[in-house]
Amino acid sequence: MPETTPRPDQPTTAGSGARCLGIIGAGQLARMMLGPAIELGLTTPVLATDPAESAAAVASRLRLGRHDDPAAVRELAAEVEVLTFDHEHVPTAILEGIERDGLAAVRPGPAALVHAQDKLVMRERLTALGHPCPRWWRIADAEDLTTALAEAGGKVVVKTPRGGYDGHGVRVVEHAEQARDWLAAHEELLAEELVPFARELSAQVARRPGGETVAYPVVQSVQKDGVCYEVVAPAPGLDEDAQQRIQDLARAIAEDLGVTGMLAVELFETADGEVSVNELAMRPHNTGHWSMDGAVTGQFEQHLRAVADLPLGSTAPLAPVAVMVNLLGGAVEDLAPGARAALAADPELKLHLYGKSVRPGRKIGHVTLVGDDADALLERAHRAERLIIDGPAAPVGPTTPGATR
Amino acid sequence: MPETTPRPDQPTTAGSGARCLGIIGAGQLARMMLGPAIELGLTTPVLATDPAESAAAVASRLRLGRHDDPAAVRELAAEVEVLTFDHEHVPTAILEGIERDGLAAVRPGPAALVHAQDKLVMRERLTALGHPCPRWWRIADAEDLTTALAEAGGKVVVKTPRGGYDGHGVRVVEHAEQARDWLAAHEELLAEELVPFARELSAQVARRPGGETVAYPVVQSVQKDGVCYEVVAPAPGLDEDAQQRIQDLARAIAEDLGVTGMLAVELFETADGEVSVNELAMRPHNTGHWSMDGAVTGQFEQHLRAVADLPLGSTAPLAPVAVMVNLLGGAVEDLAPGARAALAADPELKLHLYGKSVRPGRKIGHVTLVGDDADALLERAHRAERLIIDGPAAPVGPTTPGATR
Repeated sequence: MPETTPRPDQPTTAGSGARCLGIIGAGQLARMMLGPAIELGLTTPVLATDPAESAAAVASRLRLGRHDDPAAVRELAAEVEVLTFDHEHVPTAILEGIERDGLAAVRPGPAALVHAQDKLVMRERLTALGHPCPRWWRIADAEDLTTALAEAGGKVVVKTPRGGYDGHGVRVVEHAEQARDWLAAHEELLAEELVPFARELSAQVARRPGGETVAYPVVQSVQKDGVCYEVVAPAPGLDEDAQQRIQDLARAIAEDLGVTGMLAVELFETADGEVSVNELAMRPHNTGHWSMDGAVTGQFEQHLRAVADLPLGSTAPLAPVAVMVNLLGGAVEDLAPGARAALAADPELKLHLYGKSVRPGRKIGHVTLVGDDADALLERAHRAERLIIDGPAAPVGPTTPGATR
Repeated sequence: MPETTPRPDQPTTAGSGARCLGIIGAGQLARMMLGPAIELGLTTPVLATDPAESAAAVASRLRLGRHDDPAAVRELAAEVEVLTFDHEHVPTAILEGIERDGLAAVRPGPAALVHAQDKLVMRERLTALGHPCPRWWRIADAEDLTTALAEAGGKVVVKTPRGGYDGHGVRVVEHAEQARDWLAAHEELLAEELVPFARELSAQVARRPGGETVAYPVVQSVQKDGVCYEVVAPAPGLDEDAQQRIQDLARAIAEDLGVTGMLAVELFETADGEVSVNELAMRPHNTGHWSMDGAVTGQFEQHLRAVADLPLGSTAPLAPVAVMVNLLGGAVEDLAPGARAALAADPELKLHLYGKSVRPGRKIGHVTLVGDDADALLERAHRAERLIIDGPAAPVGPTTPGATR
């Protein structure tokens, strides 16, 4: 027998892990899986709707088709051992059919994934499990919403249960009238109290099919117009007990829902240090991009290892602090001159471009830095961001209106 | 003007760097460029002779053709801004033609590359420049070799000037007769004294077209049957002065030869701390693989940045020590079970598989680890190596005959 000491929570499953994993969706998350897949020797065909999509442009194996076309998804399933995801928009029925027919393992499976697809299902389940959530209401009509508004003190967040992302499908309302269009278009809506949060946190864990889990340091995230914009890992000022408690919460959710792969638990933290779950994502997540350059095992490699049923990697950070700042499209269409200037200004900068055309507010890349001092790192990362987004000729400095800190 | 402080040695060239770089050759070095190219948003078509080659199997843009076929190389050149290399076997005349006709920039250029292609040219030039070399002789016939043997004390290393790699094209002889076949087949041979080295070192630098250079920590390397096998970064016991002196030597060679991209200078170190140049490589090099996981900027990203004329990245290590151990093919053909066991045994292990079929002694992958203690890291890396190469069922332990330390 090999002289190896299995970690306590590591199941000794048979086999060698999957070698061919199909990725549904071809956004930047699929794109950033490709490099780690090459190093691990995994084959990862990608299902894209357009050959110009972020991952499609750089994937060596590509299938064209829609994620909601049963035939397209089943054809990909037939050529791989495992199906995994760039996004959570694949209809549950398609995935259930693939599982039922034994075409491929679906990871995360549809029974878990539905909690990242449908916010009402998520709220109901987490509440039943006793995990902390904001107060919430199931809304079928204007009357329900009026009741919720009264109970919540006059203001709620209304969300479409499915299909939302990056601030889409989220609206703050004070009168039922303000949600009339959604009430007409959707069978049900979710209403939530506005949590008076002091900041947002995110906890990421990875889980293998057999139950092995690892947790990343809990991070602090800052949104801009509903889009993840800035992350500091670990979350400043979060003591060890709180780190542990929140990691345990994320592990418990992964366990309770039977997640395989990466799970991101986005959280509100109030001034008294209490947390409640905001959203779940069952895939690599924007709040985990820092780990590509800041942890022994980046989240994209970790996701592949988890869904391939390979042993998970260390989540240890490579430096006391890592920061990530998203590149959100501005007026400049050609990023190359600004990127060159940013790399010249900061040799430690790690640049990740998604190969997407620039549209205002669109996620087109991110930068990371590791070091000792979060504020200093953020200043450097935002300077790089401004150079790349505004171009090298634009004025840059602490008083620039575009600067957000 | 942006508030950026250009580094002193950074030329303020115009333009934004190249965006499309053709890679000639599809071995593991080309393969390991692909992940960083994706993150930097660079397009990197690969010229491969066979679609099953290491990089060909995972490249999104592939051309089939031979590196010594002028038409194939010129076709690749016509679709890119820059040509660079997985290996140094492209005939000089083809590259000179591409430069002359302005089809693409060739980086490193043929005038530099010839010093990595032809060991006689390299010895002559380095000697003229005053860089430290072993004693060497140009050998046209048996008489020359007999003279060299007499001057060297009865034993020399004979090398074919071109085409050698990983111990091929290298032979230790004590009589001219022992090189008779090579003397008949080659116009000239190189003979060198056997340097009584205490260990081998390697110094890597990157250089941009305009002259900016960065140097990586000098590493210690151990060969096995002429193949790089184990690397420790930085080289243990090498004091700061010696590190600086050797980095300066590598920078001077890059400058003197006009190298663009990565340059590896393999060196002999004798017991008294003197070094002499053994070989040059003008591309990412096996002795630099540690940097993928152990430095802020890995050598593959750095090579791309240098040949694309993008600002160079920090070479700072991410931990006090990094080690790399090559995976050289053994009896087991399916690496997956052993790889799984190795990942399970060591969550910090970084695994890089090249997607090559297993043949005894063939480079099929490598592992790296970072930490504080070189001996402990090497023990772990070799344990992983044995699990992967021999399979998880084989006995592993300090007394295994396969262990080399």
